[in-house]
Amino acid sequence: MALEKLSSNKVFDGDLVKYKFKSTALGNLDANFNIFIPAHASKGKVPILVYLSGLTCTEDNGAQKAGFLGPAAKEGIAILFPDTSPRGAGIAGEDDDWDFGTVSYIVHCLMCRVYDTIRYDAIRVCGLYGAVGAGFYLNATNPKYEKHYNMLTHVTKELPEVIQQAGLPIDFSRQSIFGHSMGGHGALTLYLSSIFEGVKQYRSVSAFSPISNPTKCPWGEKAFKGYLQGGVEEAKERYDATELISKIPKAPVHILIDYGTADNFLKQGQLLPENFLKAARDAGFDEVQVRVRSQDGYDHSYYFISTFGADHVHFHANFLKA
Amino acid sequence: MALEKLSSNKVFDGDLVKYKFKSTALGNLDANFNIFIPAHASKGKVPILVYLSGLTCTEDNGAQKAGFLGPAAKEGIAILFPDTSPRGAGIAGEDDDWDFGTVSYIVHCLMCRVYDTIRYDAIRVCGLYGAVGAGFYLNATNPKYEKHYNMLTHVTKELPEVIQQAGLPIDFSRQSIFGHSMGGHGALTLYLSSIFEGVKQYRSVSAFSPISNPTKCPWGEKAFKGYLQGGVEEAKERYDATELISKIPKAPVHILIDYGTADNFLKQGQLLPENFLKAARDAGFDEVQVRVRSQDGYDHSYYFISTFGADHVHFHANFLKA
Repeated sequence: MALEKLSSNKVFDGDLVKYKFKSTALGNLDANFNIFIPAHASKGKVPILVYLSGLTCTEDNGAQKAGFLGPAAKEGIAILFPDTSPRGAGIAGEDDDWDFGTVSYIVHCLMCRVYDTIRYDAIRVCGLYGAVGAGFYLNATNPKYEKHYNMLTHVTKELPEVIQQAGLPIDFSRQSIFGHSMGGHGALTLYLSSIFEGVKQYRSVSAFSPISNPTKCPWGEKAFKGYLQGGVEEAKERYDATELISKIPKAPVHILIDYGTADNFLKQGQLLPENFLKAARDAGFDEVQVRVRSQDGYDHSYYFISTFGADHVHFHANFLKA
Repeated sequence: MALEKLSSNKVFDGDLVKYKFKSTALGNLDANFNIFIPAHASKGKVPILVYLSGLTCTEDNGAQKAGFLGPAAKEGIAILFPDTSPRGAGIAGEDDDWDFGTVSYIVHCLMCRVYDTIRYDAIRVCGLYGAVGAGFYLNATNPKYEKHYNMLTHVTKELPEVIQQAGLPIDFSRQSIFGHSMGGHGALTLYLSSIFEGVKQYRSVSAFSPISNPTKCPWGEKAFKGYLQGGVEEAKERYDATELISKIPKAPVHILIDYGTADNFLKQGQLLPENFLKAARDAGFDEVQVRVRSQDGYDHSYYFISTFGADHVHFHANFLKA
């Protein structure tokens, strides 16, 4: 699992480095990730914030467009940007749709886009073949996908391991997680399920426009029916933030969610943050522990994320530097 | 020249709006631009900063990746992001190269890229057909290009006109300009030539990694030989920042330039900021009027731009809000 450095760009006095390695979790496929290492790391190990990107994205979207690096540089926090999906598994049917598996052809990355409609066309995303991905941050149990679609293990276990083995100056005992849309679902579920397992891998979680109750929305239903042998029922146990928050032991949690009122996916019922909020309040979590903010007039794009990006980094800094 | 609104995204409490119109300057081709209008504009007209993007870019790169919008929102300054080139002129040979005319096929936008090499491949940029452009911010005199390649008129005259006609809340008497690489060349030459013409259209200029002496570098030579009947000699009169600064009347100027020492195009002699600096000092401009900063370890990417983006917006705010 040796890391191969693909590129390094100096940014805000730190470095944004892109690595590639042979991923065991993803069935021996090549996996890329970006990691921002702040200048502070020259003085000792730094805490880390994991950013999970949304449908159709790669490890690049958050690094390039979210506005996290300036605030992270100031706080002395590293940011890990994993990819969203295994690439090149070659499973039959995996690239038929843009919101399931991986897709090579679609006009403009959904999350990069300025336009608000999704247009299908024989055009590749961001100039990178296979740049679209919908791994849903789970471990597949459907035999067709279980060899490769294990983004949960990839993000929670494999990446921390390879990064530590490579000797990068990261202290994984101070780790938090955030994400956007499908990545918001990933961040919330990985955070909550690690509490269930008693591991408490992450100190805090935040999300932009997360898919908050995926067993009740078309994106989630499609993913779970495809990746999981037990389908939506199996997903309720592990992969639905609303289900998880309603069953969680009364541990202190640190959760921040922002979504925009002009988000078309909110209007289409794909996100359902209101379900998550209700479940959290019903379970007795107050506004200090679970904060869900409705942001007037904002949509699903990286313009929205960049507006509140600094806010989220500072939220996590409270816990990472405590 | 009516404006058609293509999209609008709320960002930092303002709006990033994409418009399309039939451009007379570009020979009746459709032209897009983005404009960021800060929330301040609800209380009255705001000053404007024009950002010219580099080779291979569109009106989107700066809006999405440069980190200008947060600082501009705080200062109450609008930002105009024109495209870099006419699109769809259909001139024979115009899409043969990535650094001349427009190109439809190249791997990953040169300026979006994380990788440091330019790879040619039959893959479209950013999923948008014809997204690559090398208009060089001049008015072509070669008969083959003169109908369409008039980015100078497009940026300096046509866009202010159509924006004012549309009634957008912009005060063009308070206007400054900046840009990156080819767009840095554009910003410097439009600023300096407006001083020559006694118009003083722009209050200040800044540039990231500008092509500073294009009559002496391969990119400039190629562009000028193609677009101008008089080739490189004709360009010296109007389109070379180093030539212009050495001949300019002793007016006060406000110029800021940043470039990175790890910039491969700097090493290849495409940028030559040292020539511009020497010409400025020889002409008697001191460090207050012409500031050229070498930034250690930074490259040509938007990671570099985003690091110093807020700095540049604040530099211009000094003059726009004076």
